[in-house]
Amino acid sequence: MSLAPALAARLIEITDPADPRIADFRDIRERDRIRAGGFIAEGTVVLDHLLVSPRFRATALFILKNRVEGIAERLAKVDGAVPIFVAERTVMDHIAGFAIHRGVLAHAVEATPQLAPSDAGLDAFVTAAGKTRRPLLVAVGLANHDNVGAIFRNATAFGAAGIVLDATSCHPLYRKALRVGVGSALTLPWHHGGSGEAIVAALERSGHQPIALSPRGAVELTALSFRGVPALILGSEGPGLPPALLARAEMVRIAMAPGIDSLNVATSAAIVLSWLFSQRERAVHPIGRTQDTRSH
Amino acid sequence: MSLAPALAARLIEITDPADPRIADFRDIRERDRIRAGGFIAEGTVVLDHLLVSPRFRATALFILKNRVEGIAERLAKVDGAVPIFVAERTVMDHIAGFAIHRGVLAHAVEATPQLAPSDAGLDAFVTAAGKTRRPLLVAVGLANHDNVGAIFRNATAFGAAGIVLDATSCHPLYRKALRVGVGSALTLPWHHGGSGEAIVAALERSGHQPIALSPRGAVELTALSFRGVPALILGSEGPGLPPALLARAEMVRIAMAPGIDSLNVATSAAIVLSWLFSQRERAVHPIGRTQDTRSH
Repeated sequence: MSLAPALAARLIEITDPADPRIADFRDIRERDRIRAGGFIAEGTVVLDHLLVSPRFRATALFILKNRVEGIAERLAKVDGAVPIFVAERTVMDHIAGFAIHRGVLAHAVEATPQLAPSDAGLDAFVTAAGKTRRPLLVAVGLANHDNVGAIFRNATAFGAAGIVLDATSCHPLYRKALRVGVGSALTLPWHHGGSGEAIVAALERSGHQPIALSPRGAVELTALSFRGVPALILGSEGPGLPPALLARAEMVRIAMAPGIDSLNVATSAAIVLSWLFSQRERAVHPIGRTQDTRSH
Repeated sequence: MSLAPALAARLIEITDPADPRIADFRDIRERDRIRAGGFIAEGTVVLDHLLVSPRFRATALFILKNRVEGIAERLAKVDGAVPIFVAERTVMDHIAGFAIHRGVLAHAVEATPQLAPSDAGLDAFVTAAGKTRRPLLVAVGLANHDNVGAIFRNATAFGAAGIVLDATSCHPLYRKALRVGVGSALTLPWHHGGSGEAIVAALERSGHQPIALSPRGAVELTALSFRGVPALILGSEGPGLPPALLARAEMVRIAMAPGIDSLNVATSAAIVLSWLFSQRERAVHPIGRTQDTRSH
């Protein structure tokens, strides 16, 4: 390896899987880790989001030895107080408890730990989101890590104000959700906690227009008109949203081929967000939408 | 179990993992199975598509014993010439080579085996697709099973004419692609084979308008006007499409937040197909798009 001396001097080699310094990376159990106030970020893309996150900060990095040189430039940006552990593959996999293909792990915490989720925190979050005038996403009962991750990715792509997840939804910092979401949960604002009912009440107080998707929705998406900032409520693909919530939302339909009644929930969210984004862009730039930007 | 006598009489119980009658389900290796002219369909949703498929037919079913009663109605619809094997979980998993959580497998073949993929077959497929006037999807170098499956699901939802996959793309009948695509590959027309160049040439000959997505596309999706039947060419998320293909396609951009340069490829396809579908629907039903269909 030909590493810059400053980086080489920082690397802490771990050879003993029982080394107590590496405890945060031992037997990565997603739920337990998040409960303890810390979480694991995996891969270089997620690490990039972590390094610029306004809300979270790395407490330690754990890198496969043969990956260090390839990501030396990134590692040089890591705060000097953050230890960078390195190990051979067998040691790393033994510590993590499974094969870490990407060889890049970070342990991170919330920079300023927030109060436990409460209705007050929910109200403040939803009110702040509403002030951006950009769409808000709401997940109720969304337990699938892939779907939550994909929703974060799509929300970021289309400039959503943020995401509210009820207490029964998967935590956005679960390792797999974070990875599928290409790290978006580290930079996009979100709130996790509260019931679906409490969330919809907060939406109503803050001037949002709750909308939900249904193949039998009264209004087709591209014909929807807005009374407030749209808040799209997403449920799981099987059971869907509880009737009590649906009754308080405007039911919108994505036009689909006859006989088809469902899309993947993150794909549905992307279609709605994409439509809303193109409408916002059109409002801001009513002409010149067909511009050649090839000469960038 | 309280099964209809006719169904109960058809069930063939397998207790010996070495039983030669169950050879088609042994050590399910996706690639080899497809090469041998048959493939495995997994789960009840995929089975439903198989039972109505105009192109494929089941040759045998293999069902976990404790699942039989729950899907008895489906099984009663299966052609009497198709054997229905049943087994306990340990026997089934041992035969398949891994844990079959869903407990529902079918072995299937093409009902009328088609000629080996050729440029002539490609031309005929693309020409027939063009006559529907509905959008065509084209996958080039798409090796990811999840993405190919999701593209099939989205293509079906938005009434695409079909999908052309180049020879380097994943086969749509791979078990995982089939499952993620909720069985769509058994009912939606598709062609697998040929090079990207041969496919684009066939598109040009058949009056399609090849379009491709790029964050630097000259035209924003909702401002696109059409000269022919749209054919959306999709590449893999990393390397993207070869420049020689891009040069022959109209470059279209999905409006996105600044700094974001990619969506998942299947999600991008869904956004484009959804837009095209709502445009077609609007052309057919210029009024009455806001109709209340709740009283269905």
